[in-house]
Amino acid sequence: MSVIYQKVALIGLGLIAGSISLAARRSGLVGQISGTARSAETRAIAKEIGLCDVVTETAAEAVRDADLVVLAVPVGVMGQIAQDIAPHLKPGATVTDVGSVKQHVVQEVGVHMPDNVHFIPGHPLAGTEHSGPRSGFAGLFEHRWCLLIPGEDTDAAALSRLRAFWEGMGAYVDVMDAEHHDLVLAVTSHAPHLIAYTMVGVADDLRRVTDSEVIQYSAAGFRDFTRIAASDPTMWRDVFLTNKDATLEILGRFTEELFALQRAIRTGDGDHLFDYFTRTRAIRRGIIEAGQDTDAPDFGRKAVKE
Amino acid sequence: MSVIYQKVALIGLGLIAGSISLAARRSGLVGQISGTARSAETRAIAKEIGLCDVVTETAAEAVRDADLVVLAVPVGVMGQIAQDIAPHLKPGATVTDVGSVKQHVVQEVGVHMPDNVHFIPGHPLAGTEHSGPRSGFAGLFEHRWCLLIPGEDTDAAALSRLRAFWEGMGAYVDVMDAEHHDLVLAVTSHAPHLIAYTMVGVADDLRRVTDSEVIQYSAAGFRDFTRIAASDPTMWRDVFLTNKDATLEILGRFTEELFALQRAIRTGDGDHLFDYFTRTRAIRRGIIEAGQDTDAPDFGRKAVKE
Repeated sequence: MSVIYQKVALIGLGLIAGSISLAARRSGLVGQISGTARSAETRAIAKEIGLCDVVTETAAEAVRDADLVVLAVPVGVMGQIAQDIAPHLKPGATVTDVGSVKQHVVQEVGVHMPDNVHFIPGHPLAGTEHSGPRSGFAGLFEHRWCLLIPGEDTDAAALSRLRAFWEGMGAYVDVMDAEHHDLVLAVTSHAPHLIAYTMVGVADDLRRVTDSEVIQYSAAGFRDFTRIAASDPTMWRDVFLTNKDATLEILGRFTEELFALQRAIRTGDGDHLFDYFTRTRAIRRGIIEAGQDTDAPDFGRKAVKE
Repeated sequence: MSVIYQKVALIGLGLIAGSISLAARRSGLVGQISGTARSAETRAIAKEIGLCDVVTETAAEAVRDADLVVLAVPVGVMGQIAQDIAPHLKPGATVTDVGSVKQHVVQEVGVHMPDNVHFIPGHPLAGTEHSGPRSGFAGLFEHRWCLLIPGEDTDAAALSRLRAFWEGMGAYVDVMDAEHHDLVLAVTSHAPHLIAYTMVGVADDLRRVTDSEVIQYSAAGFRDFTRIAASDPTMWRDVFLTNKDATLEILGRFTEELFALQRAIRTGDGDHLFDYFTRTRAIRRGIIEAGQDTDAPDFGRKAVKE
């Protein structure tokens, strides 16, 4: 593939930025990569492992002459960073982000963007429970969706260039508006994460069942929840604080449904339970057919190293 | 290894029975295996793939001369089967089961057991989202726990023989009383399954987010829930109906905690969220160190066939 952006600046050097660096280099999509992170330790690791060509102390330095700037930091600090980098952006540059919430980013970042740059928010639906500069890998975006959120006046050429960049890293790209994005993600990501965190917290709390029992006997289902409840706490705190309305709406629906199932258990309504559990099987088949999960038993995992 | 039971009878020929057959044969733990299932189709498949040496039409025939009888059917029908087989059990035989609920089985099966057999309920904490006679595999129990529930007057020799059988198939064995088992499993398995079923049902229901969006964008977290919500509906209906009290108790705790987190979101209490999400990371590390899950990102799964 050919170079799409001569210089890319990565602001924040965690799982997503690290994977972008590896994937973009592997496919020859970039000339040079600069990067920065707030923590000196992260910057030191990034230098040590060669995550970027240049690691700078500040975001303002990193974005200088960059054709693409990727904000890959928790949603809660994006506004501040946008303000910091705005005076240093190259005219004609594209600014995007990888945050899990979009209405908040559109507002908080958008307000600082100069007229002569293209601001196109984005969200790659890819990640793992690991975080930090060492956790990235080149294949993270392959066969995963990346949602782009152009505005009404977004330049078509800038949008297709950003689309080509994500496709070059192996992603499928779709375009969506910010409000719909935040609702879809509340269902497919934010509510499930909060529920997993809650269940793991309850298990951890329970006095009569010791910690070691919860851990030892986790293979009976619980361990599936612990993976997403091990995700980065800062990132997830910001997601819930900035996608409050949609998340609370879906959690309200969830509670309603949970109460109906609890009542079925209490009253011994086996038919209700059976029908419900049959219906939920179909959605799993759909996900497997869409290439978004594996059909191998237990996700094909090997719990114990061979 | 040497033969532990000359003849084993498997009642029910699904994932667990199929895996017992493969694992016990591989380790040379059994002489002969007989088996039966209620459905003619399941019996036909069992014959076709050689799941047992003999497939019989009835449970009464299958248990004749068996040294070990394994009830591997949904918890709700175990009482009826116990009544059917009781007159045909060989004196001195051991009867066990693999049900996910133990107080109910102790009562419903126990009442039918003749004095001259050893009834020792059991529960291997192993399984996948797949079910049926073709879903078993020999390694299912390796490094997984099997809980045995002896009574006060259980014969020590019969218990160590059953323990050796499970250990021969690669399992770790622990002994527990039925009430504690049902509480531990409510936390580590039953409540998580109901919660996963609920979340998948909610997503399926939501009108404004189309099915295809839920499926397409499931990699953001939701797909983890769909695996356990694809488990066998009959088995799970029976689990909830027969472990009602413990499950409802844990779901009550869960709802309480979920409401506290929802309030933190509503009031913007980021510290509460951050602290909670940090605490839940530790339990994941414990599970990985205990060899009960993999540390590979995303369970090491490959969503798309290579």
